[in-house]
Amino acid sequence: MASTRFSYLTGLRSSTSGDSYDPSTPQNLSAEGTTLFAQYDLDGVRDAVTPDVIARRAPDLWRYHELLPVQDPDRVHGFGEGMTPLIDLPALGKKLGIPRLKLKDESPLPTGTFKARGAAVGVARAAELGLRRLAMPTNGNAGAAWATYCARYGIELAAIMPVDAPAITRSEARFAGADVSLIDGLISDAGRAVGSLVARGEHFDVSTLKEPYRVEGKKTMGLEIAEQLGWRVPDVILYPTGGGVGLIGICKALRELQRLGWIPSDKMPRLVSVQASGCDPIVRAFEAGAENVEPLADTKTLAFGVNVPTPVLGAPSVLDAVRQTGGTAVRVSDEDAVASLRTIAEEEGLLPCPEGATTIAAAAELRRTGWIAEDDEVVLLNTGAGNKYPDVVGVTLPLLDREGAPTGIRM
Amino acid sequence: MASTRFSYLTGLRSSTSGDSYDPSTPQNLSAEGTTLFAQYDLDGVRDAVTPDVIARRAPDLWRYHELLPVQDPDRVHGFGEGMTPLIDLPALGKKLGIPRLKLKDESPLPTGTFKARGAAVGVARAAELGLRRLAMPTNGNAGAAWATYCARYGIELAAIMPVDAPAITRSEARFAGADVSLIDGLISDAGRAVGSLVARGEHFDVSTLKEPYRVEGKKTMGLEIAEQLGWRVPDVILYPTGGGVGLIGICKALRELQRLGWIPSDKMPRLVSVQASGCDPIVRAFEAGAENVEPLADTKTLAFGVNVPTPVLGAPSVLDAVRQTGGTAVRVSDEDAVASLRTIAEEEGLLPCPEGATTIAAAAELRRTGWIAEDDEVVLLNTGAGNKYPDVVGVTLPLLDREGAPTGIRM
Repeated sequence: MASTRFSYLTGLRSSTSGDSYDPSTPQNLSAEGTTLFAQYDLDGVRDAVTPDVIARRAPDLWRYHELLPVQDPDRVHGFGEGMTPLIDLPALGKKLGIPRLKLKDESPLPTGTFKARGAAVGVARAAELGLRRLAMPTNGNAGAAWATYCARYGIELAAIMPVDAPAITRSEARFAGADVSLIDGLISDAGRAVGSLVARGEHFDVSTLKEPYRVEGKKTMGLEIAEQLGWRVPDVILYPTGGGVGLIGICKALRELQRLGWIPSDKMPRLVSVQASGCDPIVRAFEAGAENVEPLADTKTLAFGVNVPTPVLGAPSVLDAVRQTGGTAVRVSDEDAVASLRTIAEEEGLLPCPEGATTIAAAAELRRTGWIAEDDEVVLLNTGAGNKYPDVVGVTLPLLDREGAPTGIRM
Repeated sequence: MASTRFSYLTGLRSSTSGDSYDPSTPQNLSAEGTTLFAQYDLDGVRDAVTPDVIARRAPDLWRYHELLPVQDPDRVHGFGEGMTPLIDLPALGKKLGIPRLKLKDESPLPTGTFKARGAAVGVARAAELGLRRLAMPTNGNAGAAWATYCARYGIELAAIMPVDAPAITRSEARFAGADVSLIDGLISDAGRAVGSLVARGEHFDVSTLKEPYRVEGKKTMGLEIAEQLGWRVPDVILYPTGGGVGLIGICKALRELQRLGWIPSDKMPRLVSVQASGCDPIVRAFEAGAENVEPLADTKTLAFGVNVPTPVLGAPSVLDAVRQTGGTAVRVSDEDAVASLRTIAEEEGLLPCPEGATTIAAAAELRRTGWIAEDDEVVLLNTGAGNKYPDVVGVTLPLLDREGAPTGIRM
């Protein structure tokens, strides 16, 4: 029997031309300007490891290391990240008429959001490839997560985020030593500013889908959901979509598991891309039957993480994934997102982020129309902790004086 | 072989008289006004389960169900809480001269703090005992956690918290449906107000150490540390101490594991109670050789969770645990806590809560004096996520205009 390897990464492939690129050196986009995706020797993985072996590994995302790009186990210096819970939602499910409703809750990850998955793998791989200075635009949470891992790996990070990004992410990124700037605009403006910075030649561009490994980290959401369900898939997964990396990663994960034979090859979940009414480029493209998004301007939503007006790199793969799985794309108003947040908190106690809450409203609407059936097993992706959004979840409460008597004041 | 049980709880015992109390009915304090502690049939546990069996269970705190009070597995409706990571801190350890430094990071728990452990077990047990309305004073995070679990279990909660408690915990508790009031005072004032509420006869008092099961949830920190180290203990554990439940729980856990024979019986970690200079009743009692704390007034610290001026119920057990293990008690100034927070963020990327950061400053000081030796294995307890304390970790950053040009403004 051949000796086993830590990673079975074999190459990088252009998502448009199919051309191969060398994975042993840092890579950004293909010659056509599209994303490169990591390829693995899945026959080798099948010979090297089984689900039973994985079941006995530590409960973090590195349990899937054969399907991740990092070559050297000594390179991994994480925080025990991953294997976030898949939580039954009996009370909310009853209310929505979806008894088999579940939440994949990403809030336990470092910095409280799913962005830590992309950072855990992306930064580890960047370190392995010898990169020393990274740069990225961010809607806040990715910058916080990448700064955290960059500090851990001794790598410099420059991050540019909109002034309206969740304020606490400024502190997370800055305390971890990142060079953080605010920009009076949206993430698309931040992306252009990062482009100018990178053009000066000192930083490597780790913008969403401009390097191949962030999506590999996000892929672990799909691997975990399959393992947590006993190596099968649900009927529907609803995903809040900004840049689209998470949904692309989940789809890639499930395709790889099918080719490994670890999940049945005849069933994919119907993937639902959920966007905010105030920023819905993918929903528009889906409805128009288009293959990519049209640029939007002055988009606005309090689900700030999905305020990505023009996700040109991710949208083709998102639209493909949605269409190939018989999925759909839906928009949710901010009012419905906040109402859903109140509902899940009252019914189940959980406080998801507003982006995650959009999936509740979307599931409710899809159940009303019958697109989701009563016996469908439905997984909502909550991408992060609601406690990072104090402005969205503000309350006023009665004030007692020191002796415990009502003052009549509410604050 | 006898059939195994889910829990091996046998009784409740007064920590002062040793008298037994019936665990099948709700209990508060002993006749002497002291805490009741849960007792287990450890011989039965030893026959029923082994560390190897536990290793194959789901990665949450219920893997230790034989040592927890909930009788009926169908009663457990958690969120997959527990088995938080024990993280190596090589860079910070090098800086402090403690190469074997580790962090038990409680921030991945629901609501982002260790309070979720006490709530997960305390609320499940309250539900099992048929309680419908609970009341508690809280410095914020416990209220958020208990409200979250109370919503999950369909139980009502009344919580009273100081106006200076972390603001986001108001939202967490209120969104989950708790009846939350603010009080113009400290947690001791909130405790008296809860006492008046409970006296009206409609609520069961779940104040710190006034019921027996919160500490059983906190105990799982100690169980996890031992399991994560391969069923052995470190040389030193540093714990930020407010009411003291966590430190008491860790000590109780390790004593039970010793009696089970799962860890060596000849070694306990030296337990260090860390307090803030502005609220240091336990440190004062330790230094004075006293058995309990003297009341303090007008205490103040930005590590708000440990602003507990008079922890009379917990202090005797904390002082016992510290003295019996050859530990100590130290105070840390707010300035040193914040400086430590900056240091760990820069060195390792992590952003602990200010309470957790006090343990870093304490470890540094104890290393300087030689109390901690270079080859000691030292575990710091980080009780929660720093991102719940925006006022402590505020930053100012440069603002770029929409085209990415500097504006000269910092915000």
